[in-house]
Amino acid sequence: MNIINSLEWRYATKKFDPSKKLSKDKIDKLKIAFNLTATSFGLQPIKMIVINNKELQEKFVEHSYYQRQVADASHLLVLCIENDTTADDVNAYFDLEKKIRNVDEEVISNFRNQLVDMYKNMSNEEKQLSAKYQTYIALGNLMTVCAIERIDACPLEGFIPHKIDELLSLKDLNLKSVLMLPVGYRAEDDIMSEMKKVRKPLNDTIIEIN
Amino acid sequence: MNIINSLEWRYATKKFDPSKKLSKDKIDKLKIAFNLTATSFGLQPIKMIVINNKELQEKFVEHSYYQRQVADASHLLVLCIENDTTADDVNAYFDLEKKIRNVDEEVISNFRNQLVDMYKNMSNEEKQLSAKYQTYIALGNLMTVCAIERIDACPLEGFIPHKIDELLSLKDLNLKSVLMLPVGYRAEDDIMSEMKKVRKPLNDTIIEIN
Repeated sequence: MNIINSLEWRYATKKFDPSKKLSKDKIDKLKIAFNLTATSFGLQPIKMIVINNKELQEKFVEHSYYQRQVADASHLLVLCIENDTTADDVNAYFDLEKKIRNVDEEVISNFRNQLVDMYKNMSNEEKQLSAKYQTYIALGNLMTVCAIERIDACPLEGFIPHKIDELLSLKDLNLKSVLMLPVGYRAEDDIMSEMKKVRKPLNDTIIEIN
Repeated sequence: MNIINSLEWRYATKKFDPSKKLSKDKIDKLKIAFNLTATSFGLQPIKMIVINNKELQEKFVEHSYYQRQVADASHLLVLCIENDTTADDVNAYFDLEKKIRNVDEEVISNFRNQLVDMYKNMSNEEKQLSAKYQTYIALGNLMTVCAIERIDACPLEGFIPHKIDELLSLKDLNLKSVLMLPVGYRAEDDIMSEMKKVRKPLNDTIIEIN
């Protein structure tokens, strides 16, 4: 498998085939891939909601500028940030590290204290913005994993987050929606699937310094 | 190749082997993969600087909180945003689309006008933030491509952007640095390569709605 061929294959799917479902194996891969996404300091201030419910998906359409992909895709992934990352969250990370890696407190305590202080000194806006960046890393990872797995997907920033948050009662979960990724299989008549990719020439986007 | 095995294989490399260089083929793949990254509306307001110059890379160390990876890695990738995305840039995208897809102006003119208006009404801060999000998509894509290609990498937010911008005279290019990704091969004695991955359990980060 050539990764470039896979990246060439992918496109922002405009029309999904509502009758085609992703297998459990495919969805499991996306869940694990999301969880393996690298995040700033490893803190994972992000969560992914996996929706497989047509009735609910239909309710997303009006809050997504009537983009049918959210309803027609096999599954709808919603990438969310935690409303706050607290000292407790930072400490929980180091406790998890100690457990998984079987390291002593003295090995990690300096870094633990630094990071706890850093997060104590950040405003809520700064913490949410930092978490938001991580959802885009996850999106980049997931789109590439989808391409490799020949799963069609359509990354969406175009929706009304507070409406989606209401629909999913995200406030109760201390979460906010940031990005959506409908995933499934393209409809045979999605005209976009035949279109050539529009990309700047490589020498416009890459600068080499040797 | 199992994508999950690849994602498990990758880690934030703390110590690179300075004697091991990435082949031209590997670097070409990273350049093409960067250029294929999905961006908001396809506008590609981002660029990647590929540095393969030990003397220059050494100068990055003091501005990167003395993380030696920037100097010891085979190549240093710097992901940048354009300082501004203007109506001209939006128009250039649609002109490129017309050329590549051989479509008539009437097919795209509505969307062209909408997007030009949208970018005219956005503040410079909003446009830079939007572009910044795209660099994180590229980072997510590149890290996964690196994992598949068995290229070691270390994503870095931890550096002083304005110092890097000065070092590379990015102001003259109308660019700002956002992220760095040293890429190459791990040193045999990088103790981090032996460490287990620290990740929350899947049921902490994934919420399923059926």
